[in-house]
Parts: sequence; structure tokens; C-alpha cells
Amino acid sequence: MIKELPLISPDKFHDECAVFGVYGHEEAANLTYLGLYALQHRGQEASGIVSGDGDQFFVQKGMGLVADIYNKSVLESLPGYMAIGHNRYSTAGGQDLKNVQPLIVNFAFGNLALAHNGNLINAQVLRHELEAYGAIFQSTSDSEVIIHLIAHSRASTFLARVIDALSQVRGAFSVALMTDNGLIAARDPHGLRPLCIGRLRSSWIVASETCAFDLLDAEYVREIEPGELIVINDQGLESHHPFPQADPAMCVFEYVYFARPDSRIYGANAVYGIRKALGRQLAQESWVPADIVIPVPDSGVPAALGYAEGGGIRFETGLIRNHYVGRTFIEPEQSIRHFGVKVKLNAVPEVLADKRVVVVDDSLVRGTTSRKIVKMIRQAGAKEVHVRISSPPIISPCFYGIDTPTKKELIASSHSIEEIRKYITADSLAYLSLEGMLKSAPGSPTQYCNACFTEKYPISFTRAEELQLGLFEPSA
Amino acid sequence: MIKELPLISPDKFHDECAVFGVYGHEEAANLTYLGLYALQHRGQEASGIVSGDGDQFFVQKGMGLVADIYNKSVLESLPGYMAIGHNRYSTAGGQDLKNVQPLIVNFAFGNLALAHNGNLINAQVLRHELEAYGAIFQSTSDSEVIIHLIAHSRASTFLARVIDALSQVRGAFSVALMTDNGLIAARDPHGLRPLCIGRLRSSWIVASETCAFDLLDAEYVREIEPGELIVINDQGLESHHPFPQADPAMCVFEYVYFARPDSRIYGANAVYGIRKALGRQLAQESWVPADIVIPVPDSGVPAALGYAEGGGIRFETGLIRNHYVGRTFIEPEQSIRHFGVKVKLNAVPEVLADKRVVVVDDSLVRGTTSRKIVKMIRQAGAKEVHVRISSPPIISPCFYGIDTPTKKELIASSHSIEEIRKYITADSLAYLSLEGMLKSAPGSPTQYCNACFTEKYPISFTRAEELQLGLFEPSA
Amino acid sequence: MIKELPLISPDKFHDECAVFGVYGHEEAANLTYLGLYALQHRGQEASGIVSGDGDQFFVQKGMGLVADIYNKSVLESLPGYMAIGHNRYSTAGGQDLKNVQPLIVNFAFGNLALAHNGNLINAQVLRHELEAYGAIFQSTSDSEVIIHLIAHSRASTFLARVIDALSQVRGAFSVALMTDNGLIAARDPHGLRPLCIGRLRSSWIVASETCAFDLLDAEYVREIEPGELIVINDQGLESHHPFPQADPAMCVFEYVYFARPDSRIYGANAVYGIRKALGRQLAQESWVPADIVIPVPDSGVPAALGYAEGGGIRFETGLIRNHYVGRTFIEPEQSIRHFGVKVKLNAVPEVLADKRVVVVDDSLVRGTTSRKIVKMIRQAGAKEVHVRISSPPIISPCFYGIDTPTKKELIASSHSIEEIRKYITADSLAYLSLEGMLKSAPGSPTQYCNACFTEKYPISFTRAEELQLGLFEPSA
Amino acid sequence: MIKELPLISPDKFHDECAVFGVYGHEEAANLTYLGLYALQHRGQEASGIVSGDGDQFFVQKGMGLVADIYNKSVLESLPGYMAIGHNRYSTAGGQDLKNVQPLIVNFAFGNLALAHNGNLINAQVLRHELEAYGAIFQSTSDSEVIIHLIAHSRASTFLARVIDALSQVRGAFSVALMTDNGLIAARDPHGLRPLCIGRLRSSWIVASETCAFDLLDAEYVREIEPGELIVINDQGLESHHPFPQADPAMCVFEYVYFARPDSRIYGANAVYGIRKALGRQLAQESWVPADIVIPVPDSGVPAALGYAEGGGIRFETGLIRNHYVGRTFIEPEQSIRHFGVKVKLNAVPEVLADKRVVVVDDSLVRGTTSRKIVKMIRQAGAKEVHVRISSPPIISPCFYGIDTPTKKELIASSHSIEEIRKYITADSLAYLSLEGMLKSAPGSPTQYCNACFTEKYPISFTRAEELQLGLFEPSA
Ligand SMILES: Nc1ncnc2c1ncn2[C@@H]1O[C@H](COP(=O)(O)OP(=O)(O)O)[C@@H](O)[C@H]1O
Ligand SMILES: Nc1ncnc2c1ncn2[C@@H]1O[C@H](COP(=O)(O)OP(=O)(O)O)[C@@H](O)[C@H]1O
Ligand SMILES: Nc1ncnc2c1ncn2[C@@H]1O[C@H](COP(=O)(O)OP(=O)(O)O)[C@@H](O)[C@H]1O
Ligand SMILES: Nc1ncnc2c1ncn2[C@@H]1O[C@H](COP(=O)(O)OP(=O)(O)O)[C@@H](O)[C@H]1O
Ligand code: SF4
Ligand code: SF4
Ligand code: SF4
Ligand code: SF4
Ligand SMILES: [Mg+2]
Ligand SMILES: [Mg+2]
Ligand SMILES: [Mg+2]
Ligand SMILES: [Mg+2]
Repeated sequence: MIKELPLISPDKFHDECAVFGVYGHEEAANLTYLGLYALQHRGQEASGIVSGDGDQFFVQKGMGLVADIYNKSVLESLPGYMAIGHNRYSTAGGQDLKNVQPLIVNFAFGNLALAHNGNLINAQVLRHELEAYGAIFQSTSDSEVIIHLIAHSRASTFLARVIDALSQVRGAFSVALMTDNGLIAARDPHGLRPLCIGRLRSSWIVASETCAFDLLDAEYVREIEPGELIVINDQGLESHHPFPQADPAMCVFEYVYFARPDSRIYGANAVYGIRKALGRQLAQESWVPADIVIPVPDSGVPAALGYAEGGGIRFETGLIRNHYVGRTFIEPEQSIRHFGVKVKLNAVPEVLADKRVVVVDDSLVRGTTSRKIVKMIRQAGAKEVHVRISSPPIISPCFYGIDTPTKKELIASSHSIEEIRKYITADSLAYLSLEGMLKSAPGSPTQYCNACFTEKYPISFTRAEELQLGLFEPSA
Repeated sequence: MIKELPLISPDKFHDECAVFGVYGHEEAANLTYLGLYALQHRGQEASGIVSGDGDQFFVQKGMGLVADIYNKSVLESLPGYMAIGHNRYSTAGGQDLKNVQPLIVNFAFGNLALAHNGNLINAQVLRHELEAYGAIFQSTSDSEVIIHLIAHSRASTFLARVIDALSQVRGAFSVALMTDNGLIAARDPHGLRPLCIGRLRSSWIVASETCAFDLLDAEYVREIEPGELIVINDQGLESHHPFPQADPAMCVFEYVYFARPDSRIYGANAVYGIRKALGRQLAQESWVPADIVIPVPDSGVPAALGYAEGGGIRFETGLIRNHYVGRTFIEPEQSIRHFGVKVKLNAVPEVLADKRVVVVDDSLVRGTTSRKIVKMIRQAGAKEVHVRISSPPIISPCFYGIDTPTKKELIASSHSIEEIRKYITADSLAYLSLEGMLKSAPGSPTQYCNACFTEKYPISFTRAEELQLGLFEPSA
Repeated sequence: MIKELPLISPDKFHDECAVFGVYGHEEAANLTYLGLYALQHRGQEASGIVSGDGDQFFVQKGMGLVADIYNKSVLESLPGYMAIGHNRYSTAGGQDLKNVQPLIVNFAFGNLALAHNGNLINAQVLRHELEAYGAIFQSTSDSEVIIHLIAHSRASTFLARVIDALSQVRGAFSVALMTDNGLIAARDPHGLRPLCIGRLRSSWIVASETCAFDLLDAEYVREIEPGELIVINDQGLESHHPFPQADPAMCVFEYVYFARPDSRIYGANAVYGIRKALGRQLAQESWVPADIVIPVPDSGVPAALGYAEGGGIRFETGLIRNHYVGRTFIEPEQSIRHFGVKVKLNAVPEVLADKRVVVVDDSLVRGTTSRKIVKMIRQAGAKEVHVRISSPPIISPCFYGIDTPTKKELIASSHSIEEIRKYITADSLAYLSLEGMLKSAPGSPTQYCNACFTEKYPISFTRAEELQLGLFEPSA
Repeated sequence: MIKELPLISPDKFHDECAVFGVYGHEEAANLTYLGLYALQHRGQEASGIVSGDGDQFFVQKGMGLVADIYNKSVLESLPGYMAIGHNRYSTAGGQDLKNVQPLIVNFAFGNLALAHNGNLINAQVLRHELEAYGAIFQSTSDSEVIIHLIAHSRASTFLARVIDALSQVRGAFSVALMTDNGLIAARDPHGLRPLCIGRLRSSWIVASETCAFDLLDAEYVREIEPGELIVINDQGLESHHPFPQADPAMCVFEYVYFARPDSRIYGANAVYGIRKALGRQLAQESWVPADIVIPVPDSGVPAALGYAEGGGIRFETGLIRNHYVGRTFIEPEQSIRHFGVKVKLNAVPEVLADKRVVVVDDSLVRGTTSRKIVKMIRQAGAKEVHVRISSPPIISPCFYGIDTPTKKELIASSHSIEEIRKYITADSLAYLSLEGMLKSAPGSPTQYCNACFTEKYPISFTRAEELQLGLFEPSA
């Protein structure tokens, strides 16, 4: 028998979306394509671009990777001087183009497209209210709520309607909207997900991460602030702060794993450097005598380098990452148990044999992959295997736009570190401390969300929301 | 305007093929699929599997990557207890399934399939002779000559015909053949390309590199020797040495770049370790004061680690390799000149700014990519950029199964090292010496082919062949 | 140069849609597929099926022919005991799956699917009103108005909401709706388009024409009456007459051309017999001495047979209809002017040479095809060509669900019969009289719409609607 | 459960191929496409075109209908001033592009393409001989033998090699070959299959039937004679008669059923007229009192018209042929027994009820379809059903390029007419007599093959061939 094995790492949190927008460039869709290409790591299941020429919207969407969806003829069917785009990492449904963003609608007063990174915790409640008024939803996406709120708003200008709508949603949103006149981009008052502003000569760009600017040779201007809304049109860029102030709560996990190491986020803070700092701090907190430090590639590389430097232990690449890993893998029956991870990673016995090995990864979610990696390293001859994780134990799901398992599946939510160590069969296991992580992140520790490590959610839930989000499981 | 940009590195030599075979396993095609998956780096344009059940052959071929060609239903249409497979990196024609191997024919005396890694230098001459006898060729592949030689042989047994045929061809061949009775595998007398034997319980396996065995949890048995031919059938494995003895001339470039770092080739020699040794030797030969050593990822990593260790300079990852690079890239007009390399690699300014940087790569072919990399590193703020190459200057093409540019396009064939340094805009440039390279490779230096570095071809050419292979260009 | 030629006859009116529904059969989707197959002539551009199992809806849609869209796996993904389906002949946009019916929505109170044959003349007006209330339209189809009217209705039960919605629309509708509980089917008060009820053992069926029942071996029960609405669920079939009474105005053109000749419509009236009667009447009104009567196959066959019998002239098939005519045809440059019609029809010189020929067709819209046919017949050697049309001159467009050219393009709207005769180069031309046509149709002449022949529209237009429908063209 | 039902009538003989060629036209491939379109009825499974510009060959092949395979870009990739094409109706293998013609090879002395209509009875014997000489066959097609015979011929010129090859094969061949210099077309000495010459201004055309000329507005010149070989190149058209003379034996079944009714074959004899004559003769031989004569459409139409005229009985169309019948049909489980035929044909009760019906078809092979048709007519209310077949009973298979069932499956090979009548449940059944058929065909009766009606094969078999062709089944 043969079955299909998904290869999107089941043992990681995953960012759900990338957002990109550009205004004032005759190749707006081409730039958006490049931006989405650079932001592919934030969503690999589907992608869409909507361009506009002031009169009309043009749209192309597809399932799969950016490079496969947008070919020559697709891009040439997207004229106009402005565009927004979106990559999606989908949790469920999946194969349904209806859920692929940007969402587009045609109102009485013109066209509107929306690209959203984040998650709205009161989406279900709002949806029920809107449906009672006759609204017909086309998708199961929480983002569609924003569009119906705009359509049902009684505010007189379009901008006022957008502000009206965004004021009613609670949760995480980094959004880009496109109208016939220009772009609007906004970040929720807590600033949970990143969103930054760039400039390419006379064009304005917004993107989830700066790596999108690098590919375009565009300049990084600044982060959109938490609670800020910007309007970009032929008058230039205009900044608003229309929402009630709130404490910033930027996702610290972006530093740990989500963002590309070559990006800067939250105000020009280089991710690579922070990751190395996490590793150095980890070495300080939980040094262990060893012959070599190896990363779980690629995400573990900067922290492993930091650990090696900080700990004075030799850095090696004892696991080789296969270049050709796709989204899925056909798994024949005869395969061994550890197949999944073998397809992605292979051990190098010459490096590992007879060594005391420290293996560094960024995070540990279910523990299943780590267990396989430890076994693979040991099978390659390692004498000792010490696992070091450059973030604290994850004990609670994220409700702000990250695809996470349920609380029950998070191994650290119900097991001690010693129990986890036994499960993954390591000789020792250490996580970075919460304080250690926050110390390595720039600025005040209070400005970051760390709810998945601490269960301290920056946005409170109503009882209805708690039930809906599955926070409290029915007592059986 | 939009154009398509191929992303298979134009500035590297490329292996042209991977070969895999298995006998005596009820999931023969599944194992072959896995083997080809692990050998993807030796050929990304097309792939094929032929399985057999003793009575019939079953075949599936396609253009593209292994993971995309073989889905559930494709694999389920390949029953039988034996199979051979092939990955192809094509030079020209390309889109033509006729050239995709394994080649299959139906003779009077049964079915035959052939998978070939290497290149036959007398293929054209033999083809003309065979055609004069009425042979009809279906493809433009040199490998088809072997099949017609078998068909036209007057030898009485099938094995004798194969030996007859392989005795007539000159050049590089690591081949796997499948008949209704079993497999035959052979390596040319010089042993130019690798081919090794593995075992999975009671099944025999042959594969170009050992990384294919690792994925299957199969055991590595030994390399097939230069000039050896093995027969695998229900009687087990039988070894022959039917060809006149010749001096071994195994491709040294497999160590430098072609093979996967986690493979062992030419008698269990670990590629990763040899690459690090090349880097250490390079540091010894051409050390330069610097703040950091960075690799051109991923192929440059082991040598860079070796250089860093040997040179006592800090290792960093100042270039980030994009995970989602495919075979081609749609390039919009507005793009900057260095687009190609930017899609694959991005610099990390935090690592590079104000640093004296040694950047290590495995080889340098045309120089175009290195030039772009140096500029990218400098643009990220590096104070000095010193390029170190862990192999000698390439001055001549390969005719033994490697896709190489013409002599003219090899920058080192007509430029001094100083001229190349200027072209790539580096502050300094050094290659590893020939002696240094051969010293880092295990065993006697004389057992390796190094013709592309020295122009000393282990197989002599007739005048006709020289002309055909374009060795001597017409005087203009 | 090569161009694409559409082969859907440009010289005919075209039915825009087929509707089918079934309740209470474990193979509901399979039956719907068969029904849509039999109703293919009412729409060839796209097709969709929605099935339901009481809990969930399942949907499959595609562009193209029924036989191409629904394969094994598509049908197997449509479980449930009820289903509705739709074939579409599209006028514009075309390639957009969003306009393909059945339309499906998810309300607060459950799922709803809609399949509509007909056209609503106040759709634009209603759409603007609904959008002012915040409704967001997903398609450009007039049918979507019905769905939003249901969603915005304040009536308390679902049935009351449907009645509320259908009471607000004016125009032609034969609709099938599916909810989680069962089907609703309705015909507008004028009964413009057909819709009939059938029964297959314990299952109820609705279909545009009875030929769908024949293929299923289902029994014909009766036509749904003008203004009737039926509800089908586990309580059986329930009939309502919720709309204000109106004079019946059933489309007479269904008899002339739209319906399949083997269907019965409007109360068990066999189309084939009526078409022959039209031909017999035509012979009586405009007999001409001739050697043979030939049809424009296939639609002209019954009337030609009637004419031949009535006129005592020998029937022959002098034009052969190609079996393999698809929706489009690639037309190379060198082709002659009359290419389009040649691909569909070829003349048989043996039949036509030296003959006085009466050629009978059902209707004449633009005259372009008739002109080509006359020339083709003459080229094959005919001495005289007399064209006879088994319906009156078409002088005005249809606004009730038929795809028609603008008034200007209707040759008879601005040309005398003699002028048309000259244009089509016939020796004589005669149309059936209005009285002749109505006499051949069963029952009272007043119960039929004949607006396209008389400009007497059974539903009056407001000024806004007139403008919108392009009834009055702007004076230039 | 759902299964796929093939809709190519299982109760008919089927022509296996169409051949087309053109020389001297700048749109050679376009003309070939049009010709193959017009010849679609001779092969619906696959099609191919090879064009040439004197230097190079260009090729496109595909599975399916002509209209689906050749789109704009496919046609534009076929430059050159000459081309040959082929439609194929395949018996077995099917999905394999290798068997799709034209076959193309590259010899030492240039390119060759071959399109073959017919069947070679000594193909297996020749294949074994050729394989013994080292020939490698790529397909299972008998036509490939011709190519290897040409390649192995020792004759000095290319034309001499072709003649050498065609002199060795026995059986039916109407072939078109293309070389770098021009076309060669030939018909076997018996002239079993048709092949005619046309002219479009300065270009020469060859085609299986004249309907291909009509679509091109080309002129019919003449039939290629039995045993004639023509060469077309820049010197014009040259005729040869290189084969030993043989008695003509042209397939009479082409008149009965295979050819399109609007074609002329075997020297300008109009098929339509002959079919009517067959029907008139049938009325004379086996008149029966009846109210109406109906055809099994479309192939039965001309004979039915002839029968009605000759018999003085009214012609009606009591069976309606569905316009949208494809190659296959998805058949859901619940379907009734007679599903297959219902998808293609529907009865019109208004025509048939209470009538004594004569139903005319061209031929009767297995009887299964006729049985269903009789039942369908009776179910529609007919009082009596009299079946009349416009050809004699088929008692033996065809070995000359027609797809026929085995002898055992031919109902008339082992059943009396009365037994067949009972099986098909008709009130009476009559076939046309052999003499009646031959009398209706133009010219001498001895010039036609009628082996399937008489078992008198015009080409004798060796014992080996008899076994191979399954003429004598193994006694069990
Ligand atoms: N699946 C793989 N996993 C890890 N390394 C690989 C894999 N395939 C190839 N390699 C190694 O990667 C190198 C090529 O990768 P890289 O440097 O990223 O690209 P380039 O071909 O442009 O140099 C080769 O040395 C090869 O040995
Ligand atoms: N295009 C990219 N180039 C380089 N690094 C990337 C890219 N995309 C994502 N990353 C980084 O790679 C990490 C994920 O890669 P990896 O560890 O190989 O897989 P996994 O998701 O299984 O951990 C993330 O930290 C991300 O920041
Ligand atoms: N393109 C065509 N146009 C008209 N008649 C055709 C065409 N192709 C084939 N025919 C004729 O139609 C007959 C086959 O059609 P039909 O009777 O409908 O199907 P069947 O193959 O089931 O008998 C043949 O006699 C053939 O001569
Ligand atoms: N499946 C079918 N079988 C038989 N007749 C059909 C079928 N579908 C449509 N028709 C009839 O055929 C006519 C249209 O066919 P035809 O005259 O060949 O093409 P055109 O649309 O160009 O007039 C219509 O009258 C319709 O009633
Ligand atoms: S809960 Fe965790 S992953 Fe989610 S936003 Fe907060 S820190 Fe980031
Ligand atoms: S020429 Fe170079 S690449 Fe070719 S086999 Fe020899 S060493 Fe290897
Ligand atoms: S206008 Fe003509 S086509 Fe339209 S419904 Fe009335 S009769 Fe029918
Ligand atoms: S056997 Fe019958 S079908 Fe075959 S060639 Fe002779 S007459 Fe034609
Ligand atoms: Mg990782
Ligand atoms: Mg590299
Ligand atoms: Mg018609
Ligand atoms: Mg027929």
C-alpha cells in the first residue's frame, strides 16, 4: 500500500499568511509576484494577486506555490498600477479556491479586495449577527467578516466604513485593502503580526517582512505601528491612528521561527542576529560538555551557531537537509517508521560517530520529529545526544493567525521536561527560559506577546469565544 | 516584459544522470521511486521507472521532479519484483519523452530496459555503422547505441551480447539493465562514474550513490569495481570482469560538488569529510586575515567549515538560501541585473556589515554567479570580500557524462586568476591547487580523473571524435 | 494565420438553461447527471450539480459538456438523496465559474442551492436596492438576486421567504431550489419556460423537458403550472399557487426549435408532431413546384418531412450533418469564406444536381447561415433553391431567458421578405404566417408568448428596464 | 456503482484508419488538420500530423478527436510545405502514443514518416525475421514492419527501397509516406481500401475519401488505382505500377457503412446514391405491409429513404439521435439494461404508437443493439416491428483493416435468420441478398471484396497466418 504523507512539518507552529501590496508602479502585479515569492515561507498552500488600473480589478488565484501559480500568461493578465497579494497556509478545507485571498467584492460603490494576515477571535459572533441582517457569506474564512462589516457600515465615506469595520473586530490583523482609488493597510492595536512599509522609487509597498523588499531592491521605510492605518493613493501616503490605544503585544515567535532569518521586523530588528543571541543565551543557561554542536537545519542554524560560539564547542552540519522536499511525499508501505523525517533530513555518520552531540532546534511542539531526529543521530553513531531548544516550552495554542495543534497535542502542556526528554530519548533536554528569550529580544519585554509559552493572552476572551476556540474542552 | 529564467545554476557543472535498480522485492517500483528521490540532485529534468514481473515490463516516465511524476496511481501501475530507474538532467531537446530513460525495447528474445549514467565518446561513429545495417534509432541519446549493439550482436546468450555491446563502446558508463530474468549492472573499465551495491534483507540494490540506501534503510555492500559487470537474478549476485583492464580514472569532481555530502562513494569514502578536508587545505594554501568565513550555501558549507576551522576564523551564514527555488523563475522586466542569484540567495547585512569576509564555494565555472555574489556581499556592507574555491581552475570540458559549457565559456580556460579576480570584483581570489585537491582525496592520486582541471583525458580521442565533441573549434 | 471559430450556430436563438432536480433517490447525483445529459441541448457552456444528504451540500461544477465534466470520481464525490443540476448556455463572460449554476449559499438557517432557467427583467433594479442594504453579490447573474431577496426577507419560515422573494421578481423563471430539507420548484405566473414533474418509483423529479425522464425510464407526471410552486420533501409533494394570477404566455419558440423533438412540453404536447404540422401548414401556405424537399439538418427535419408530405414532393437528405462538430473550430487562414457552415454541413451533389430544391429550416435569425446554405446547395448543382421557414419572421429580441441578438441584428426587423430573399440569394423565400404557426400549436393561441415575432411582450417594462434591456437604442 | 461505457457502437464493423497527405502548400499542416477533421469517422481514438520543410520534420500526436488535439499552438508548431496525417480507431492497447501514426523514423539517409490504412496479414512473420536481423520494434503496430523493411532493404534508391518493402507485405494497404523530398502514396494490388487524389491549385492531396476535398474546396482528381504507387515532389506527380498485377478486390462494405454518405469512392461513385439503391433493392426483395419506414439514424437514413420510396411506404424519423454522444458514457448503477442505446437514440412515441414499423439499418453484427432498438420501438407503442438490413448476413471477420469481432461473435456465422429474428424480437427480419447488394454497386461484381459476407477471402492465408489471425480456433 501507498499513502500520501504531508511534509509541512507537523512538529512546528506555522504562520498562516503573507500580505503584500504596491501602489504606483506600472508593473504592480509583477512586483507583487516577486514579493509573494520572497514571502513564500509564510504560506505555501495557495496564493492570489489582485491588480487594479483605477477602473477594473484583475485577479488570479491558485493552489500551490507562487512559482507554480504565476507563469507568464497569468502575470500578463494582471495589468494596472496597483496590486495586493496574499499567500496562505491553510489549516483545513484546503482545496477550496473560495477561501484563497485576496477576497474580492463588488459593492454598489466600487471594487474592494482584501488580504489579511492574522485571526479574528470574534469572527463567529460577528458572522452570526451579519447573517441575521441578510449577509451571505461565500467562504469560511474569518477575513470575510471584515468585508461584510464594510458593506453594512452606515458611515458615509469609504475610509470611515473601513475604520468602522476594523473597530468592531477583535484579534490579530495585518491587512492590505485595495479599492479603485488606492490601498489601505492597517495593523491591529496590539500589533500582533508584522507589517512594514517600503519604497521603490516613487512607489509605495507594504509587506509582511522586509525580505520582500530585498528581492525587489526596494528600500525599507518603517514598520506600520500597532493600531496605525495608512492610506496610499495619488496624494501619497497618509497615516491614521483611528483605533483606541492598546498595549503592544507583538508575536515573539516571529523572532524564534516564523520570520526569514534575513528579514528585519518590528522596527528594523534583524532576525538572524536575535536567533544567534537566543542560542548564545541558551548555551549560557544550559551548557553541557560535548564534542560538536549541530543544528536541525535550516531553522536551527543561527541558534546552533550562537550556542557553539557561546559554548565554545565546534559547530558541524551533521544533518543534511534534502533540497527537493515538496509539500507531500508518497510513502510506500515497506517504509520504516521514521520515514517522514528521513525524506527531509539525513544524518552524516562521519560527523556524528562516537561524538557527544548537542543538537539545537528553534522550538518543540509535539515532540514527534525531535524523537525521530534523536534516534537518527544515535543510529549514525553518536555517543550522547543533548537536545537544546532556543525557546521556552509551548504550553498553549495561538489564536492570532498561527496554525497550532490543540492544547492537548502540545507535549509541554501536560508533560514535564524530564518526561519529554524520555519521550524524545535524548540524554539531556533543555529549553531556553522565558526571561532568557525576552532578554535576547530587543526593547522592553512587555511589548511582546508570549501567550503560547505562558498562557497569558493579550486579548481577553468572552465565554462564547472561549468555547468556540476550543479553549475549554467539554468534560467527558 | 516577462521572461523565463532557468534556475539550475548556470555557473556549475551538472551531473547528467542517476541510476537505480532493485531485484527481489515485492515493492520493487516503490523502492526505486525512493531511490530516485534520494538521487534527485543527479538529474532534475525527467525520470522513469520500469518494473518487471518476469513476464511483462511496466513503465512510467515523466518530465520534472521525482516527487511530481510518481503519485499513488503511477506507482500502483508498476507491479513486479524487479525494477530499474533513472533521473535525467538534460542538456538540450528536453521536452522529449523519447530521450527519457530507462530506454525499453522488445527484442525477439524478450524485453530489455536500460538506464545509463555517463557518456559514450564513440556513440556517433557506432550509430552511423548501425544505421547502415538497417538499425532505426528512436532517440538522440547516446545510450541507445548500447541497445542496438545488443540487438545486432551475434553472440549466443543474452549476457554474451551485453558484454559484446559494452566492449564496443568507449567512454563512461555506469549502467543498469533489466531483462525478463533479472538485472545486469556494469561500470566502465575506468570507473569514471560511481555505482554501488546495497542490500535490503534478501533484495539486491544498485545505485549511483549511497544516500539512496540510507533513505531505504538498506545496507551499503560495496562499490561496483571499474570494469566489473554483475548479474543479479534468482541465483543471487554473480560478478564478471569481462572487459580489458584499464587504469582507474574515477571522477574527482564527485567529491568536490556532484555527490550529496551525506553519500559515500568510491569505496565508502564520505563526501562530507573530504569536502571539509578540501576547505582545510584551502585555508592552509591561501589564508587571508578576515573577520568571518561564509559559505555559498549549500554546496559551499563543508569546505567553508573546513576553512574556518583550519584558518581559525569565525564561521557565519551570511547568505541565506531560499527554500522554494524551483527549476525556473519568471522574471519581470523591471528587475535588476542580479536577479537570478537574488532569487536563490539573500545577504544578511547584520552579519556582513563592516566585515572582512572570506566566501567559500566549491567550484567556479563561468564566473558570472560569483561576480553577482561578491557584489551582493559588498552591497550588504562588507569591507573586504575574499573568494576561495575548494577546487582548481576548470580549464576544459568533461566528456564523461557531465553537462559542461564549451571550453570558451570556462573562464579559467583563457583568463589568469588575477583577471578572474578582477572580473568577479573580489579583493582576492584563490583556488585550491591540484596537489592540494588530490591530497585531500583518499588513496592514490593517480586513480582519479581530473581532466577538466588538467586537460589530461584518461580516454584518448580519435580525430573524428575530437571534431564531433567540439574539442577543436573551427578556425574562424 | 489561425483563428478560433465558435460553432454554436450564430444564426439561431439559443435556450439559455436547463434545470433538473430529484428528491428521494440514493443515486440522486447520478440521476441528475443523466438528466443534464439529456438536456444538453439547452446549454453547452457549463454545468453544475449540487447534492445533499440532509446535513451537507456537495458540489461539482465545470465548463464544457456534461459528458466531459462528470467523470467517475466527480460523481462519486456527490453523495446524498437529493440533488439539483443546471446546464448553462452563456452569453458573455463565459469562462467564469462564479456564474455557473446551481448557485449555493450558506445562510444562518442552512444551505441553499438555486438553478434558474429564464431571465428577470427587474434584476438590475433589485440588485441596486439590495446592495444599498449591504448585500454583496458574487456573480453577474440575474439569478443571484433571488438568493439575496431570500436572505433579506423578513418572513418567518423558509418557504415564506422564497415566496416573498419570487413575488418581487418580474420576468421568466423556472427554478429549482434545494435546502437541507428538500426541493422547491416554481414556474413564473406566465409560465414562460417549461418545467415538468416526473416520478421514478418513490422519487420525485423536476426537469425542463421530458426527454430527461425518458433516459431515466422515469414516468412523466405533469407540467408544473404557470404560477405554481411545489415543495418536495419527506412528506411528499405539496402544491402552492402563491403568486397573483396572470395570463399564461408560454414560449411558442420551444415548439419551433428549442425543445428536443422527442420531448413533450406544456402538457404532454409532442414536439415532433407539432413541428411536422408546422411544415405541413407551411406547404399549404407557400407551396412551390419542386423536385425535392430537403431539411437543414437536424432541426429542420420534422418540418421538412411535413412539407414534403403536405406538398407531395419527394423528401431527400441533400445536406449531411457532420457528427463531430464541437463548440469551436480552429480555422486556418487559407479557408474559404463559407468555412463555418461547411464544417457542420456538406452538400451531396448526387442529390441536388439539376434539381429544383425546397430547403426547409425552422427559423431565420440573421440570415448569414441561410445565405451560405443556399450557396452551397447551388454550388452542388441545384437549378432552383426555395427557402421555407417553419416560423414567422423574427423582429424583436427575447427577454425571457433566450440568447438573442440585438434588434438591429435581426434581419427581419428592418428588411422585407423580398430583401431577405435577395440577401440569402434564394429563388424564393417564404415564412410561416403567425396564424399558421399558432394554429399548429395545441390549444388556445392566446396562451403562448410570441413576442419575438410580434413585439407584443406579455410583461410590460418600466422605462428604466427598457433602457437597461437596450430596447431603445440611443439616438445617434 | 458507476462504470464507463464505451459508446463507439459495439454492434458495427469499424474502419480503422484515415490517411491524408498534401504537398506544395505553405499551410500544409493546416490543410491536413482540416482533412483529418473531415475524415474523423474513420478513426476517433488518436490522430497525428507530421509536416516537413525539406530539412526537418515536425510532429504532433494525441489521443482523442481531431478537434481536441489540434489547437492553435499545436498547428503553429507544424511549419513546412508538405505534411501527412492519420486518424486511428484502435482495437487494443489504446492509450499508447507509440502506436499513433504517422510513424516517424530517422534513417542514415534522412527522415521518413508513414501513415497506413489497412492491415498486413504477414506482419508477424516479417517481424520475426526482421528481429532476427537485429531490428528493434517500437510499437505493436503491423505498419512498423514496412519501415524496417525499408531500412533493411539493400536497394540503392529510396524509392526502390519503398517498392522493395511494399512488395514483401501481403494484405491491405493504402499508405502515405513522407520523406525530406516529397510524398509517396500507394494502394495494394487488390485495392482493398480507398485512396484518392485531389488538387488545390498547385498542391497535390491524397485522402481516404473525397469528403476531405470538399471541406478544403479542393478538386477531386481520381482514385489511386489498385497496385499504383505515386510519387509527389517538386517535379510534380509521377505514377508507377511496380507490383505484380492482382484481381481488384475493393471493400464493398465502404459503400454499405464505412464511407461518409457525401463521399465518392472507387472512381467517383457517390456513396449516398448507392446506399439509397441498396434500400430500394431491399424493398423489392423483402417488402412487407407497414405504416411507416424509419431509419436507425444516421447511417440507416439513405437506405431507409430508398426502402420507403421503393416500397411506397411513408418515411418517418421515429428514433432521434442525440447530438452530444461522445466516445464514452459514465453509467450509474441504477440504469436500466438498455442504457447504452438510450443514450444515443430515443424513440418518439407520437410517431410509432400503433404503427406497423419497418426499421432499416445498414448492417447487423452481433445483434445486441438491434435487439435493444426493437424493444425501444415496441415500448413506444409500435404494433409490429420489421427489421430490414441493407447488406447480407456477416459471417466472417475482416482481416483488411477493419475492426471486427471474432467469428464466434458474429451472430450470422452460427445462427439462421429466423434465429436472429427471434433473438432481436422482431416480427420479421430480412437482409439484402448478396446479388442484390452487388447489383446496387457500380461496375462488375467481381471487382469487390465481399469476404465478410461470403468467407471468400481475396488473399490466401498460409497456415501460420491462419493460426495467427485466429481464423481457426483451437479445438477445445
Ligand atoms: N538533496 C540534497 N540534500 C542536501 N544536499 C544536496 C542535495 N542535493 C544536492 N546536494 C548538494 O548540494 C549541492 C548543490 O547545492 P547548492 O549549492 O545549493 O546549489 P548549486 O547547484 O547552485 O551549487 C551539491 O553539492 C550537492 O552535493
Ligand atoms: N526562503 C527561505 N530561505 C531561507 N530560510 C527560510 C526561507 N523560508 C523560511 N526560512 C526559514 O526556515 C525555517 C524553516 O525551515 P526548516 O527548519 O528547514 O523547516 P521546518 O519548517 O521543518 O523547521 C524558518 O525559520 C524560516 O525562517
Ligand atoms: N461526419 C459525418 N457526417 C455525416 N455522416 C457521417 C459522418 N461520419 C460518419 N458518417 C456516417 O455515419 C454513419 C455512422 O453513424 P451512425 O449510424 O450515427 O452511428 P453508428 O456507427 O452507431 O451506426 C456511417 O455510415 C458514416 O458513413
Ligand atoms: N440531443 C439531441 N438529439 C436530437 N436532437 C436534438 C438534440 N439536441 C437538440 N436537438 C434538436 O436539434 C436542433 C438543433 O440542431 P441543429 O439543427 O443540428 O443545429 P442548429 O442549432 O445549428 O440548428 C434543435 O431543434 C433541437 O431540438
Ligand atoms: S501566542 Fe505565541 S505564536 Fe501566537 S502571537 Fe503570541 S507569541 Fe506569537
Ligand atoms: S573531466 Fe572532470 S568532471 Fe569529467 S569525469 Fe573527469 S574529473 Fe570528473
Ligand atoms: S419572445 Fe419569443 S423566444 Fe422569447 S419567450 Fe416569447 S416566443 Fe419565446
Ligand atoms: S472482408 Fe468485408 S469489410 Fe473486409 S474488406 Fe472485404 S468486404 Fe470489406
Ligand atoms: Mg526547522
Ligand atoms: Mg552551490
Ligand atoms: Mg438547425
Ligand atoms: Mg448506424
